[in-house]
Amino acid sequence: MTHPTAAMLVIGDEILSGRTRDANMHYLAQQLTDHGISLKEVRVVSDDKAAIIAAVKTLSSHYETVFTSGGIGPTHDDITADCVAEAFGRHIDVRADAADLLGSYYAREGKDFNDARKRMARIPDGAVLIDNPVSIAPGFTVENVHVMAGVPSVFQAMVASVLPQLTGGAPVQSETLRLMRGEGDVAAPLGDIALRYPDLSIGSYPFQKDGVYGTNIVVRGTDPDLIAAAIKDLQSLV
Amino acid sequence: MTHPTAAMLVIGDEILSGRTRDANMHYLAQQLTDHGISLKEVRVVSDDKAAIIAAVKTLSSHYETVFTSGGIGPTHDDITADCVAEAFGRHIDVRADAADLLGSYYAREGKDFNDARKRMARIPDGAVLIDNPVSIAPGFTVENVHVMAGVPSVFQAMVASVLPQLTGGAPVQSETLRLMRGEGDVAAPLGDIALRYPDLSIGSYPFQKDGVYGTNIVVRGTDPDLIAAAIKDLQSLV
Repeated sequence: MTHPTAAMLVIGDEILSGRTRDANMHYLAQQLTDHGISLKEVRVVSDDKAAIIAAVKTLSSHYETVFTSGGIGPTHDDITADCVAEAFGRHIDVRADAADLLGSYYAREGKDFNDARKRMARIPDGAVLIDNPVSIAPGFTVENVHVMAGVPSVFQAMVASVLPQLTGGAPVQSETLRLMRGEGDVAAPLGDIALRYPDLSIGSYPFQKDGVYGTNIVVRGTDPDLIAAAIKDLQSLV
Repeated sequence: MTHPTAAMLVIGDEILSGRTRDANMHYLAQQLTDHGISLKEVRVVSDDKAAIIAAVKTLSSHYETVFTSGGIGPTHDDITADCVAEAFGRHIDVRADAADLLGSYYAREGKDFNDARKRMARIPDGAVLIDNPVSIAPGFTVENVHVMAGVPSVFQAMVASVLPQLTGGAPVQSETLRLMRGEGDVAAPLGDIALRYPDLSIGSYPFQKDGVYGTNIVVRGTDPDLIAAAIKDLQSLV
């Protein structure tokens, strides 16, 4: 299976402190899989300038596409836009297009478009805005990095605008076979079957329910016939 | 706040494909915070030898303690133990202590201690076993890396045996102030208050509920008096 590769960078002390449980990673993972893009790595870093810049540089050079989540709001701890600009050596300032979007939004809402809110219009030179239908403050794409909000409803809306523009491979399909046998009982024949299907990814996930051990075997690939053939072979383990 | 630093490495295609939602990161984050250890970074990588080895090397050299989750079962895709051994240049094979534990367990259960299950007794030279009261197959500690299972109930049991052995800093406490004002309205005075309390971490997390914008301000630190003083200052934003 050769699919375009992607990585995700989650920015936020609130995730690392355990205060908030991240929801965006799981959502993006599912969306990318459906779109035929292979999520290869996720990193979660704190609201720390050096850490964010280093992660953006590494991930953007190793993977075809990078998605970031978090740190683009109006407060002192929102430093993602500036860090991404610095990672790519680009100038960043309040940009007219983003300021227009936000200015007219706050005018409609009868709210002050103050300096803090102007911070959300800081966009690196040459970046393309990502639409935010939920709360207007845009994300942006610079080179192969898509910078998106951390609030799940906004993150999801931004993923919806970015994904259709990306070229995916054939969508990855999967089938699961549930075995009421322990992993250790099926590991050897399972390994043999996995070797016979190099174009499929065959994973094994143990579970324990009401004191009984079982194993979910998940077969993933782009060719439904091949998946069906592997599942048929795997039935011998039942 | 100077606390011992930690990183986590989650190993598993099932997380990156979106099939499974990771539960261990959030659990470990909370446990470490309670224990006064600062989780600085999380990486999620696929069941890929080169990716796992590289992540173990980088994280173990950058942070005081590393926790891994996943990939220590009996099947062909369980390669974590071998990768960790290779990252540290240590020999690995079925080790007598781990094989004894597992062998007597399977004997009691009337199950075959076959080659696949013996795979779970592969432990790097010099590593210390981590107790697994749930399903016996041990984790292990080698240098500053704690290698643990991905199944949440087992992961949690292993965290419970490892954490008391680690030296934590003063536990981090937090207080949250819920403001029914948008982040953009409070960002400027909030930034000023944050500057006045360099020993506290003051984060701002917007929410939207029933069309109303609000902001949760979270103050974290080790000194309850300092936290109370900051919260008092922040009340001015209500």
